[in-house]
Amino acid sequence: MRFKFNPLDGSQKVYKKGIIHKNIRVPFREVKLSSTKDKDNKPTENVPVSLYDTSGPFTDPTIDIDITKGLPAIRTPWILERQDTDESSSIVPSTNDNNFPGTRKPLRAKKGTIVTQLHYARNGIITPEMEFVALREGCAAEFVRREVARGRAIIPSNINHPESEPMIIGRKFLVKINANIGNSAISSCINEEIEKMVWAIRWGGDTVMDLSTGANIHETREWIIRNSPVPIGTVPIYQALEKAGGVIENLTWEIYRDTLIEQAEQGVDYFTVHAGVLLKHIAFAQKRQIGIVSRGGAILAKWCLAHKKENFLYTHFEEICEILKQYDIAFSLGDGLRPGCIADANDQAQFAELKTLGELTKIAWKHDVQTMIEGPGHVPINLIKENMDKQLKFCHDAPFYTLGPLVTDISAGYDHLTSSIGAAIIGSMGTAMLCYVTPKEHLGLPNKEDVKAGIISHKIAAHAADLAKGHPLARLWDDAISKARYEFRWDDQFALSLDPETAKKYRLQSQSPEDQLRNFCSMCGPNFCSMKISHEIKH
Amino acid sequence: MRFKFNPLDGSQKVYKKGIIHKNIRVPFREVKLSSTKDKDNKPTENVPVSLYDTSGPFTDPTIDIDITKGLPAIRTPWILERQDTDESSSIVPSTNDNNFPGTRKPLRAKKGTIVTQLHYARNGIITPEMEFVALREGCAAEFVRREVARGRAIIPSNINHPESEPMIIGRKFLVKINANIGNSAISSCINEEIEKMVWAIRWGGDTVMDLSTGANIHETREWIIRNSPVPIGTVPIYQALEKAGGVIENLTWEIYRDTLIEQAEQGVDYFTVHAGVLLKHIAFAQKRQIGIVSRGGAILAKWCLAHKKENFLYTHFEEICEILKQYDIAFSLGDGLRPGCIADANDQAQFAELKTLGELTKIAWKHDVQTMIEGPGHVPINLIKENMDKQLKFCHDAPFYTLGPLVTDISAGYDHLTSSIGAAIIGSMGTAMLCYVTPKEHLGLPNKEDVKAGIISHKIAAHAADLAKGHPLARLWDDAISKARYEFRWDDQFALSLDPETAKKYRLQSQSPEDQLRNFCSMCGPNFCSMKISHEIKH
Repeated sequence: MRFKFNPLDGSQKVYKKGIIHKNIRVPFREVKLSSTKDKDNKPTENVPVSLYDTSGPFTDPTIDIDITKGLPAIRTPWILERQDTDESSSIVPSTNDNNFPGTRKPLRAKKGTIVTQLHYARNGIITPEMEFVALREGCAAEFVRREVARGRAIIPSNINHPESEPMIIGRKFLVKINANIGNSAISSCINEEIEKMVWAIRWGGDTVMDLSTGANIHETREWIIRNSPVPIGTVPIYQALEKAGGVIENLTWEIYRDTLIEQAEQGVDYFTVHAGVLLKHIAFAQKRQIGIVSRGGAILAKWCLAHKKENFLYTHFEEICEILKQYDIAFSLGDGLRPGCIADANDQAQFAELKTLGELTKIAWKHDVQTMIEGPGHVPINLIKENMDKQLKFCHDAPFYTLGPLVTDISAGYDHLTSSIGAAIIGSMGTAMLCYVTPKEHLGLPNKEDVKAGIISHKIAAHAADLAKGHPLARLWDDAISKARYEFRWDDQFALSLDPETAKKYRLQSQSPEDQLRNFCSMCGPNFCSMKISHEIKH
Repeated sequence: MRFKFNPLDGSQKVYKKGIIHKNIRVPFREVKLSSTKDKDNKPTENVPVSLYDTSGPFTDPTIDIDITKGLPAIRTPWILERQDTDESSSIVPSTNDNNFPGTRKPLRAKKGTIVTQLHYARNGIITPEMEFVALREGCAAEFVRREVARGRAIIPSNINHPESEPMIIGRKFLVKINANIGNSAISSCINEEIEKMVWAIRWGGDTVMDLSTGANIHETREWIIRNSPVPIGTVPIYQALEKAGGVIENLTWEIYRDTLIEQAEQGVDYFTVHAGVLLKHIAFAQKRQIGIVSRGGAILAKWCLAHKKENFLYTHFEEICEILKQYDIAFSLGDGLRPGCIADANDQAQFAELKTLGELTKIAWKHDVQTMIEGPGHVPINLIKENMDKQLKFCHDAPFYTLGPLVTDISAGYDHLTSSIGAAIIGSMGTAMLCYVTPKEHLGLPNKEDVKAGIISHKIAAHAADLAKGHPLARLWDDAISKARYEFRWDDQFALSLDPETAKKYRLQSQSPEDQLRNFCSMCGPNFCSMKISHEIKH
């Protein structure tokens, strides 16, 4: 029960029902507003604001959460209705014990069929997942289908993660944010990781990547997926390396392949695959100021050099596609050679890899596998645009998913902020998902408070990008809060803030209890309040 | 003594001496670095990094600080050498008691002379102030003179603020940041305000605006100026309104004029003057979603409407210039009609005022008065560029000084971050100074921690802009910290961070004491450290 939260202050969970598919209910966070009073105190109603809600059943007081059972499997009927999957016993045994108490047989595509949203979209089918997304984003379901069909958007939705509420990643939709969690060999336990996941989605995380590298990888992931209403991503090479005893040279395609299947059966929705780290690119990276900063990239570079062989993720790429299309796992083609400092931004290594990712995108699409592309890293503001331009050109409009970029190297302890600057800029240029960075970046593993700081800062970046792109839902939110601010409806202003608790706390800190009821704040005092004067000169 | 600080961890105060003017010493924060060890442990020295230092004598352990006496008046000999000023008794009596213990007669230009840096620059004179700035910025003194002469940069330096260390605001120089402090009627005392000022400059504040509106305005300002090594700005209409009993209708040109002189004699370095709020513009602002959000703008708009008269700051503008040129006070032409929400961005009211500010710039320049232009406000990312473009065009390359812009309205409690996104963008386009915003924006008066958060976030924005503009000093800093990061020189990485204490604290939080000495962090653990692997594949 400890992962149960109330809705955010001033919000309540509401649902919109499907029209094409009657059995879907799309969650929103509804903020009811007080009335606007004119000078004679006559009220005019303000319509409630419905906001995109990533927090899942955890903020629905009518749903009884038991993390040992997992969340309701809302997608199971949709998946079974399609009759293109089989229940089967696990193909590969797990290397860890799995102490998650539930029993569930994994699903797989029937032999010869493809179960991806891209496959359905190309065949003209509007799935419940697509309609769900359309209701969330306020657009037509057919528009969603078309964007998915052309590869410009993805809906990561492993058939073994039926607990997930469908979401879309694409430049024509709201900009999304990802939160990384996961333990490492020297820190963190399963409970802590689930708590971070629930915390991340409470504040607006759209997907969560489990980057665990330590003990109990399989079990940690199982608990997270069973309790996650958002898509889960992983970097399978991490677990493969654990299976190889931590010795990079001992990694093999077979270990990796089995790891993919193991994770596919658990329900991972997207895989970061560093298939663009080629031998010829590694030479470029060796010339850099600080080399390779992607963990996956460094692992594969070392493997390639040790064996004097091409990256096995590249040579086995079509086999990877064959696996992914049986579960509807999306590719997140990893930027193993992303720049880790300003000096290395936009260099030969980075763009050579990006070009390869574009070639791999075409192959993935041939297999109807949904695909997005990962991007940098550390990039100064003046070089950001080139990243977006080249990504669009090389990768055929596949969604871009960037880490930051961080616009300077000097801000250890505040890199969530530095990242959100670059993220807002590249988001406004069309990047579809922003990977958060926390204040602990470059220093250590984030704790719960760091997760929140990372989420909120990137949520601001994403929303600023939505405004810049003119997403119609975005402006409604800003206009509602500004109207509340102007009319001194403080409680409405708090409820419409990204973090109502903090906004309220800050006002209380600097205001006496009597003053809190009055129409000004401690910043200006009663005589200098511009909003008060604005009202006086308006009427 | 309570305002004495040590230098930042790992830094020490050093000085560079003048060449043209032998009696100037320019402060820097020097970071000594440890050596780089190769795989045989053979050391190669790393040269120390000298960083721009705004903290003044407070971080110089050899200077004895007594805030009741004020800081050493380093500029007094430079000012007296010019022989163009007279000591005189105060022209106008203060309305408050002044309990600052020192006695000092104010200086004024000799009758018929002009004592502004712009005047000297136009006459081909390289002042000590200009050489000081050149050494700080790493450029030629003649370049500084030329930029000041053409009005593209200003060096705010009231002859009655001899304690100040000269700094330059202009698009060809490092981007500066301003911190607002000041009490309001319902909060804060003098000691607190001085403490905030010292705190703000410790973390990188380049100028400080005292926006006090409550009791003891005169005295608060006196204590701040006497102890401030950075230029101090004010909005004189605030004190004028206090003198008018808080009744806007009772404001007069005479009250305002006397307030200007009073503050000029105290040593205020720049004045925000809302002379662009004209009657015809106010009508545009009344159509807005949330009206006028500038305090000064709202006061003047109300005055104009009450008296059905044009703004007295506009009608008396040449007389204001006559005062400012006698003390070398710079104009900060206020944007009284800046947009206070996304819906009002880039509207008719805003740009009509900006055009007027451009006309006033020409008049100020005619009088040899240094001038900068204030900018918004709340602006979505896609509309930021138009602000910079129009400012350059309307205001003839006078430096731009913006508040944010905040790129969304929904982030109460985190507006320091939202502002730093817009600030980084507009800074990279050429804005010369960024006014900070703190986490308390829209909610209340900032405390010490809020001041720090506001400074650091905008320092990141300013530095990111410097990088984007290619300032040669900027990249040295990033390259030094990234090299330290790559070589696991943790103490060097901390010392080179904007906030060494926080960076160090975060690493300690997530690392056991033994692990802190080793070459990885808790984020990845020993087997997954990309930097460690990068070293392995490099050698």
